[in-house]
Formats: sequence, C-alpha cells, structure tokens
Amino acid sequence: MVRALYKKRDIITRLDEEFRVVGISDSRGYIYDGKGLNLEKLINIKRLSDYMAYHRGGSAEDLIEKNDVDLMVEATPTNIENGEPGLTFIRRALRRGIHVVTSNKGPLVVAFKELTNLAKMNNCHLLYEGTVAGALPVFSLVRKCLQGDKIHRIMGILNGTTNYILSKMYFEGTSFELALKEAQERGITERDPSYDIDGIDAACKIVILANALMNKDVKFEDVKRTGIRRITQEAVSLAKKANFAIKLIGIIDKRIEVAPKLVPINHPLCVHGTLNAIHIESDLAGRITLIGYGAGKETISAIMNDIFTILKDLRKS
Amino acid sequence: MVRALYKKRDIITRLDEEFRVVGISDSRGYIYDGKGLNLEKLINIKRLSDYMAYHRGGSAEDLIEKNDVDLMVEATPTNIENGEPGLTFIRRALRRGIHVVTSNKGPLVVAFKELTNLAKMNNCHLLYEGTVAGALPVFSLVRKCLQGDKIHRIMGILNGTTNYILSKMYFEGTSFELALKEAQERGITERDPSYDIDGIDAACKIVILANALMNKDVKFEDVKRTGIRRITQEAVSLAKKANFAIKLIGIIDKRIEVAPKLVPINHPLCVHGTLNAIHIESDLAGRITLIGYGAGKETISAIMNDIFTILKDLRKS
Repeated sequence: MVRALYKKRDIITRLDEEFRVVGISDSRGYIYDGKGLNLEKLINIKRLSDYMAYHRGGSAEDLIEKNDVDLMVEATPTNIENGEPGLTFIRRALRRGIHVVTSNKGPLVVAFKELTNLAKMNNCHLLYEGTVAGALPVFSLVRKCLQGDKIHRIMGILNGTTNYILSKMYFEGTSFELALKEAQERGITERDPSYDIDGIDAACKIVILANALMNKDVKFEDVKRTGIRRITQEAVSLAKKANFAIKLIGIIDKRIEVAPKLVPINHPLCVHGTLNAIHIESDLAGRITLIGYGAGKETISAIMNDIFTILKDLRKS
Repeated sequence: MVRALYKKRDIITRLDEEFRVVGISDSRGYIYDGKGLNLEKLINIKRLSDYMAYHRGGSAEDLIEKNDVDLMVEATPTNIENGEPGLTFIRRALRRGIHVVTSNKGPLVVAFKELTNLAKMNNCHLLYEGTVAGALPVFSLVRKCLQGDKIHRIMGILNGTTNYILSKMYFEGTSFELALKEAQERGITERDPSYDIDGIDAACKIVILANALMNKDVKFEDVKRTGIRRITQEAVSLAKKANFAIKLIGIIDKRIEVAPKLVPINHPLCVHGTLNAIHIESDLAGRITLIGYGAGKETISAIMNDIFTILKDLRKS
C-alpha cells in the first residue's frame, strides 16, 4: 500500500497537492504525523514499530478521531462472523464523514445495507473494489463502463484456491486430497482450508456482488452453497472427456448459489490455475467476461483505483 | 440507437431532465425538431424519411449548425482512407463546442491527435468506446477502472470475422477458403473480405488503442501487418496437436503489430467464434482480460455508456 502510494505520488499530487498519509495502524499500535508521514522511510522499514514515534497500544480508532483524516483505507483481516474489527472502524469513519476504501469482505458481508446507507447519509464514498476478485475491477466495470446496462446475471470463478485445486485435478489427474495438500504446501490455502473449499469465501463475494450490482438484499445465509470436497478425480476425468471442466461457480440470477458446475472448455469463464473470472450478462452488452488475478499483490490495483475515484470526485466538487 | 434511448429514457431523464433528441440524419436527409423528436414514433418507422418533415437533401452538417445541439452521436460508415464523411462532421461539431460520441474508426485512425486536441481546446468530450471491440468497454476500463495502473502491453483478438474463420478451421478442420466462404454466406464478412482477413480492421483498432491508452503517436502505416490468407489447415492442425490455436493477434508494446500467432489453448485470450478478447498488462493489476462481442447490436452498450459519461459530467459541472 505505502509502496504503491509512493510509486504513484506524482499522479496523486496532481489530483490533490495537499495529499498526505497522516497515519497508519497495525494490530498493536499506530504512527501518526499531521504533516504527513515519510513514505520513503516507510517503504524501507520492515515493521511499523520501526518508524519513529510508534504509539504502542494505540488503535486505528484513535487515528479515526484525528481531525485531519479525510480518507481511510481499511485492510484488517476478514472476519465473516461479525465483521470485526473492520466493521467498527468503517462505521466510525463514515460517521465522522471520512471516505472509506476497503479490501475487507467481512464488514460488507455482515452489514452491507447498513454501511452503504451510513455512507450515503454522511455524504461519503464507501468503495470496496478489492473485496471481490482482487485486481478485477468488477464494481467499477459495471458502474462506470456499463452505465446504460441492466445486469441480468453474474457468474464467476471467485476463489483462486479452489480453481487451483480443480485445475490440478483436471490437468494432472491428481486426487482432490493431493491437490489440496499441494495448495496448502504452496501457501495458496489456509491451514484450515474450509473457508476456500467449502465455498465460504466465494459465497461472501456473491453476497457483495448481489447487493452492490444487482440491487438484491442478500445475506450470507441466503447463498445456497456446495463446496468441492466431494469432487472426485473420476468426475473430473469424465467431464474432461466430454470437453467440460468442473469449476466452483458462483451464480446470481434468480438463484443465489455457489456450487461445482460443468463449464464447457471453450467458455470464456473456463480459466485455470489461480485465475478468477467474472461473467456478466446484461441487456445491451450481452455477455462480458473479465479475467485476472483474484488475490495477492495485484489487489493493490483495486485499492488505488478506489482512492483515485475519490480524489477525482473531491476535486470536482 | 433510438430504441436504446427510448428504452433507457427514465435513467436519462434522471440525469438531465431536459434531454431530448433534436435531430437525426441519414445519408439523404434529416429530421429536426428543437422541442425533441418523438422517440416512440421513431422506433415504429422503418426509414427516417417516413417521419414527418423529413428534409430530403439536407445533411448532418445542417444539424450541427442548429443552436440547440450539445451532443452528437456519429455513426457514419467507416472510411479509413480519409475518414470522411465522419471526420468533417466531428471537426465541425467539436469546433462548435458540441460533445461527440462516435463508433466510427475512420476519423480516429486518420486524425487521432488532431481530433483529441480539438476536443480539448473546445472543452468537449470526444468519446469512442464503440470503435474498438464493440461492446467491450476497453477505454473506460483503463481510464476509470485502472486509474492507478500504467499499461505496459495490450494484446487482442480484435476482429470477429477472422476469429470465426480460424475457429471454424480449428474445430471443424475446414480449409481457409471454405471457412471464408461460409463467413461470407452468413453475412459475417463483407463481399470484399480483405478489410477483415488482411488485418486492416484489426490494425485500425490497434492504432486507436495505442494512441488512446498507451500514449503513442501511431498511424495506420506504423502497424506491421500480416493477415490470415496464408494460414493453412495443416498449420492449424499442427498447432492444435501441440495445444495451441492460431489467432490473429494485435499487439502493442515495443511492437505495433497485427499478425497470426500461436496462442496456448488455456490462455484467457484464446476465445473462439466471433468473440473478441483484449488482454491488458499493467504494473499494479498484472494481467486482465476482457472478453465479449466485438461487433453487432451490442455496440450500443458502448455508445450509451459514452452518452452517460457525458451527461453525468455535465450534471456535475
């Protein structure tokens, strides 16, 4: 994040010459300087606590209370049980009229309507491009590039880990167990892989997509969810012989569902490895598919784009 | 066009309650009503001349001179020799401070810098989403969804006709000649197919993409161009056995080129039939691919999005 802000400082300053990063917090404390932190120093230290004047024991909430904060980037770990601690931070910031950019699914899965209403009431941006499919700008695409279109259906491969496992089974003929083990060894999945392979992560993304882009009022429990635990090598091979691949697909139309589906091998959605893909059906454009990296360092592209959207909008008003 | 404006009239009126279509011209004349034409009537007539008060012999230039025109949608046939008649219409409109939306490659291929400078000088929008890859919003995607990204490379399947022919050769084992004949019979290609199969159409799109998104100053002659006439069934079959497909690819990096290339069958760019695909490599997002219909009625999505962009911008200022 700091590295990207530093790299793009020239373009940022052209949009807002007074732009500065006044504070950053981690789970144990924060650093703050109303005149602006030294980004060049920051990219050369390993831990936030190596920066001078690290307030150990302080919290992000202290930073939100400072008077010179206009925009908060929230990137705490995802918690889909209660959205915390991100939910509290976002609520506080919006109530104080601070624009929010987040890459954290938790708060939006738990409280989408509450937060978007809170943002509207306080005349704030709440942007969350990084929450779904990492670097793929699906929210901006629909809102800024398909402004005349009505979206009928969204289908997507929204979880890179399960796509890695299913691709491994497809191309190398390995069993589910072996493919999962390799994904774990390569650090692609968590030690507890349930979040990915039981479709929980994909279902969270479906909740946000449905609420944000298709005007639904959907909660996590509303997603009909089947994971990939029971996908056998035999099933994958049979599908392959018929020119299909088995993919964990999230669907929003009349259905709100995450489940393994047979996808024709030549369908644009049929991407492999850790790639994500989102297929959008609309009244004017027909069918558009967006493919790219769904997680990892590329997510910074989404966060930066949200920041630029806010800076450009503030400059106009 | 009229059908889409009529269908979306509610959203349009919310953006600009005084929005009205005051004039439409075809190659032989025009209709005009400063109070606004009746869209409902218009979608029920076959020829423009069936509308009352059709000015036979009048031209689009007469319409541009009317005092109540703020925005022109230009969709005359593509002429890449001299850009006419679109080039004259666009020049005139911009000089009069009229915003322009066009789906016509010709004027932009012939005079990209001149027209974009003219637009800037007159404080006008010149938007052309529909000129490249039909419904695929590649210009908006880069400008509005990858605002922090620097584009390193663009590669694309930018011509649906050649992709149809090459897909036919790949899947059905037909010869180039037979596949071309079928494309002609199905109306997918012109009687003179050179524009498509010699890569002229794709090269035009490469010129616009390079100038618009990668800050180049490229003319049609600068594109190194090889068509698909010499692609034999043997070449396609050999590639297929090695898990590649031969595709007509446009590339912009250090190269500015349109040529048949071997594309790995699992690469996101490797789409078939009349689909188009654009692959964008950038510093933050990594690799993003956009897939969809490159021509036909879906292009209206791009034109409408451009119109919405202008209406929203005017509302703010």
